[in-house]
Amino acid sequence: MNWIVPNIQAPCPAARLSALARQAQLTKPPGSLGLLEALAVRLAAMQRRDNPKLDKPWISVFAADHGIAEEGVSAFPQTVTRLMLRNFVQGGAAISVLARQLDAKLEVVDVGVAGPAETCAGVVLNRAGSGTANFARQAAMDASQLDAALSAGAAAANRAIAYGAEIFIGGEMGIANTTSAAALACALLKVGPGHLAGPGTGLDRAGVEHKREVIARALARHADGLDEPTEILRRLGGFEIAALVGAYLHAAAAGMPVLVDGYISSVAALLAVRLQAACQDWLIFGHRSAEPGHQLVLEAMDARPLLDLSMRLGEGSGAAMALPILRGACALHNDMATFAEAGIPAG
Amino acid sequence: MNWIVPNIQAPCPAARLSALARQAQLTKPPGSLGLLEALAVRLAAMQRRDNPKLDKPWISVFAADHGIAEEGVSAFPQTVTRLMLRNFVQGGAAISVLARQLDAKLEVVDVGVAGPAETCAGVVLNRAGSGTANFARQAAMDASQLDAALSAGAAAANRAIAYGAEIFIGGEMGIANTTSAAALACALLKVGPGHLAGPGTGLDRAGVEHKREVIARALARHADGLDEPTEILRRLGGFEIAALVGAYLHAAAAGMPVLVDGYISSVAALLAVRLQAACQDWLIFGHRSAEPGHQLVLEAMDARPLLDLSMRLGEGSGAAMALPILRGACALHNDMATFAEAGIPAG
Repeated sequence: MNWIVPNIQAPCPAARLSALARQAQLTKPPGSLGLLEALAVRLAAMQRRDNPKLDKPWISVFAADHGIAEEGVSAFPQTVTRLMLRNFVQGGAAISVLARQLDAKLEVVDVGVAGPAETCAGVVLNRAGSGTANFARQAAMDASQLDAALSAGAAAANRAIAYGAEIFIGGEMGIANTTSAAALACALLKVGPGHLAGPGTGLDRAGVEHKREVIARALARHADGLDEPTEILRRLGGFEIAALVGAYLHAAAAGMPVLVDGYISSVAALLAVRLQAACQDWLIFGHRSAEPGHQLVLEAMDARPLLDLSMRLGEGSGAAMALPILRGACALHNDMATFAEAGIPAG
Repeated sequence: MNWIVPNIQAPCPAARLSALARQAQLTKPPGSLGLLEALAVRLAAMQRRDNPKLDKPWISVFAADHGIAEEGVSAFPQTVTRLMLRNFVQGGAAISVLARQLDAKLEVVDVGVAGPAETCAGVVLNRAGSGTANFARQAAMDASQLDAALSAGAAAANRAIAYGAEIFIGGEMGIANTTSAAALACALLKVGPGHLAGPGTGLDRAGVEHKREVIARALARHADGLDEPTEILRRLGGFEIAALVGAYLHAAAAGMPVLVDGYISSVAALLAVRLQAACQDWLIFGHRSAEPGHQLVLEAMDARPLLDLSMRLGEGSGAAMALPILRGACALHNDMATFAEAGIPAG
């Protein structure tokens, strides 16, 4: 492995204290803006400034395929990954629509869609392979593929930094990737698939049962190698999940806030936090997914997501929906009058 | 009473069916956008169009004072109502900041602040009195004041309609108005103040206990007249709460969606629904307040708010924070590609 976990600093304590002091002076009862106050303070500390802002958000959507799809664990055929990749860059997917609405920079990264590499306007080609291997039978990746996928995520974070992005959103697309995410979560949390595997894009009850059996079988096969996070990721992961891990760690190392999407992204976040605990300070959780396993993964990080809208699409769409909450928190923090400015007694 | 409850129609069933059909064709697993799908469908039915939009939101903040403040039920002195009225129009209050960020039209209505009428640039003067009477001793309003306050809300809704607003947000400001709201909710839900009176702007435990005693005493005094919603409102209400009731009913009667704010606004919504059940179809609940009584009021209407951010400021701020969720739902509904357009099998 060439890939190295970066060193991550804590957000700025002085900026945090300064932001807390400002919140206490704004024309509202103390605490009455609830989580928006804490968010503004966190963003000020992360951005090391008095007036945090999110005018330049960056979204990287990582797409890849999964060998485990051949076990019949998804409601959609594998070809949909490539078709959705095109839909992302053509502007028709949910994340494409939201990126336009939010004036966010959207890039789409092919980190290992099945089949040959396809040059497609707007797609960044940074492939770790042509889909992972079926982890029910063997490791999903070899060490060099894992390295390439983690590096693809780090490279995306570096592009966001070069762009001057003020927050990083990662998204993912890959048929069968809730199966990979559930297996990873089982290994990380030492919990069985009954708690972590759900319907994904729309399996029925029998489909979910089958998915759980496939995961249980795979966990048994890999039982001798599930002690260490990168090895768990190599054996059970997906290229897009590894890319998210690399992106989160490198965004955090560069002092950029990260807005985490749903189930799959949160499993990537959990891997990042296991690799470098300081990463957690840089993660803001955008939404609670309808995928039932998300709950346990969030609990493992004591995470309280901003939104709970029963979404379960991925692509970064839940994080994108949460961005206006952060922008509202910043605007209130920066632009409200203080009690002194408004000539109001502070209660 | 001259004020008449308007007749309210249901949202358009044909537009609803057409929107449902479109949702099923968009490039996502069915249901994967969760509540955003239902919101887009509701908005399409309310706006009677295929492509619902919220480019022109309208916010009316109603400010008034409460005689009950003299019982020492608030953490802030009554003078703060007038000072905050100025802060609203000077742009320093939370709702002022959010209105600018959202490009929403904000109007501030003095519907009965204590003391003399004060001409202040940007404030609409439509006063039902100079603060209500102390409802622990007598009825908060007489019939003509109630009429005036309800009419002030109806007039605000009419201004929003004339402006071409696509959604109506009501906000409120009035020191001691959680006491009035809690008393109203007690009377409407036939529940004691222990469940409905909370800290408001920041009472301590003893303060909350005192507030509950004041409300219990008032409910006992008015026990002979708490059967009918308008009489409950006349005896225990506030001018700004009555204005919200009038505004909600008239916005709904005009076919305009209403985005409801927190505790006090939800009590006004409950009054509106009790007066005209069809009003409920036009109400979208923006957020769940940290004020504990909000829960029961929401349950009484089977309402699931969009946000749960522990906010408890009022002013319409929670509804304003929820507006981007609705805008996101509209953008996704209107702008996502269909499976056919993207050449993707529908699963």
